[in-house]
Amino acid sequence: MANSHPNFTNKHLHNLKEDVLYHLGISTNSFNFEEKFGDVKFVCTCGSAGRIIKFATAMAEEAGQKTPPENIAGAAARFVLFKVDRTLFVDHGMGIPSTLIAIHEITKLLQYAGCNDVLFIRIGTSGGVGVKAGTLVISNNCVNTKFEPIQELCILGKVVRRPTAVDMNAVNELKSLAESMKLKCDVVVGATIAANDFYEEQARLDGAICSFTEDEKKAYLKSAYENGIRNIEMEGTGIAAHCKQVGYRAVLVCVTLVNRLEVDQVSLTEKEYAYLQELPGMLVGEYLKKNGGINSSGKPSNKSAAVNGKK
Amino acid sequence: MANSHPNFTNKHLHNLKEDVLYHLGISTNSFNFEEKFGDVKFVCTCGSAGRIIKFATAMAEEAGQKTPPENIAGAAARFVLFKVDRTLFVDHGMGIPSTLIAIHEITKLLQYAGCNDVLFIRIGTSGGVGVKAGTLVISNNCVNTKFEPIQELCILGKVVRRPTAVDMNAVNELKSLAESMKLKCDVVVGATIAANDFYEEQARLDGAICSFTEDEKKAYLKSAYENGIRNIEMEGTGIAAHCKQVGYRAVLVCVTLVNRLEVDQVSLTEKEYAYLQELPGMLVGEYLKKNGGINSSGKPSNKSAAVNGKK
Repeated sequence: MANSHPNFTNKHLHNLKEDVLYHLGISTNSFNFEEKFGDVKFVCTCGSAGRIIKFATAMAEEAGQKTPPENIAGAAARFVLFKVDRTLFVDHGMGIPSTLIAIHEITKLLQYAGCNDVLFIRIGTSGGVGVKAGTLVISNNCVNTKFEPIQELCILGKVVRRPTAVDMNAVNELKSLAESMKLKCDVVVGATIAANDFYEEQARLDGAICSFTEDEKKAYLKSAYENGIRNIEMEGTGIAAHCKQVGYRAVLVCVTLVNRLEVDQVSLTEKEYAYLQELPGMLVGEYLKKNGGINSSGKPSNKSAAVNGKK
Repeated sequence: MANSHPNFTNKHLHNLKEDVLYHLGISTNSFNFEEKFGDVKFVCTCGSAGRIIKFATAMAEEAGQKTPPENIAGAAARFVLFKVDRTLFVDHGMGIPSTLIAIHEITKLLQYAGCNDVLFIRIGTSGGVGVKAGTLVISNNCVNTKFEPIQELCILGKVVRRPTAVDMNAVNELKSLAESMKLKCDVVVGATIAANDFYEEQARLDGAICSFTEDEKKAYLKSAYENGIRNIEMEGTGIAAHCKQVGYRAVLVCVTLVNRLEVDQVSLTEKEYAYLQELPGMLVGEYLKKNGGINSSGKPSNKSAAVNGKK
């Protein structure tokens, strides 16, 4: 019985007879969580539903399972949810608030299922800082726009600051794996800013509002680079702080779509964009297979062929 | 020529030869913005793509136009975008950061098109504070979780606090209209909290993490009620502060799915949920027709019939 599970990070959950995971469109009465999710070791997540569906489908293919995999999320859900072998796939929308909704509910799902050791892997897109478009950045630190490794919430009207953490073992293994795969892109390890906005908080001059000069923007981004930051996205601190709080691990692999030291605008062709946004999945897919997240059927897949250069 | 338009709230935009509205998947080279969007007076927006598609389709039907209307957003877009008569329809995802992306790009679109007088109308779902599920709340104030009418950003590492504003003329007209329509639900005018999270920042006990007691939660929500707050959602301050900055107007009409003074969990049936989330559109659709946003063909529509009670 789900509610007897001893490892809730929130003791109030023991009082619930049924828990509706509202944005996933399922509840603890929908099925037996321990049976259905008890073996999960990895949660792969990204902003776009379309992209996570594509990645889950590629992984189901690797595992020799029917494609596309079944969407476990209910009809009225705000997210999609797939399971292939020991890996969950879920989208989280854009920005920390949307992401927190998804990972609160996924965390509860995992705790009801009795999963104690889980790695959350975000495969995202981002703006590069001093690295060219098409670079994979594996985050060794998730910071806010003040460069602090902190996630802030305002709970009952009071500011709460929580430290972020990334799983450095996963970071190092992903970096080595990328090298051994001879990916046709640069792969760097660096810090990642999570901003609460795409334009002003990311020091872009091209939003509908801009209150700073080009020189101020450049100084900020230069300072970011000097502080070890290699990319900017909108979710990292949320995931990294949440996972630390609940005793799970987190790692981020994001591709850069632009070098923000040079320009603000993302102006890739549709084909370039389609290719670049697959890069994190190429690396993470191999990682999942190597670590038992996906039981590869052993056949050389199209995905692996693409990794080695034939796009 | 778009770039000669004098009314940019961000003067840097004058320097752009082309402006890629990246998350809408279009650019100023895609078409003539003045021709295509120059007559826009209203922007209707909500979190879910599915819901805004449904609403835009209902409005296209009212206007005697082909349904579903054409999605103007590009293939790689993160949002959908429709235009029916003088009204745009766009989704904004969940949370302020996602919403800011959408409304920065919509604002630029409107400014390129030369639209000076625009009302943004958010039709959302929310948690009620002291009002029962199925109540329409028209916001007379958008506040943060400290009950301040302020939206905070952290720009170039420094906190910027911007005041929110709602269009009280629209609030009053919507309230009168609701009364004349004899909507089968309560309609109240009150303040709206925008939280950066569904669980902890909204004082829910049922997230994966909860650092407060039930008594502390109750005291917070009671205090919210005493401060005139009638619902909690996740976008209001973002929209209301952004619109004030750029000289547009904003109004929010959200339906409540739960009374948070009683419970945390949203546990509606699929049918109840489907009905409730249509309520804001029922009111706003009539408002748009009355104010020239949609040129109704005059026929009594199914939607209007539903409003008067035959669901």
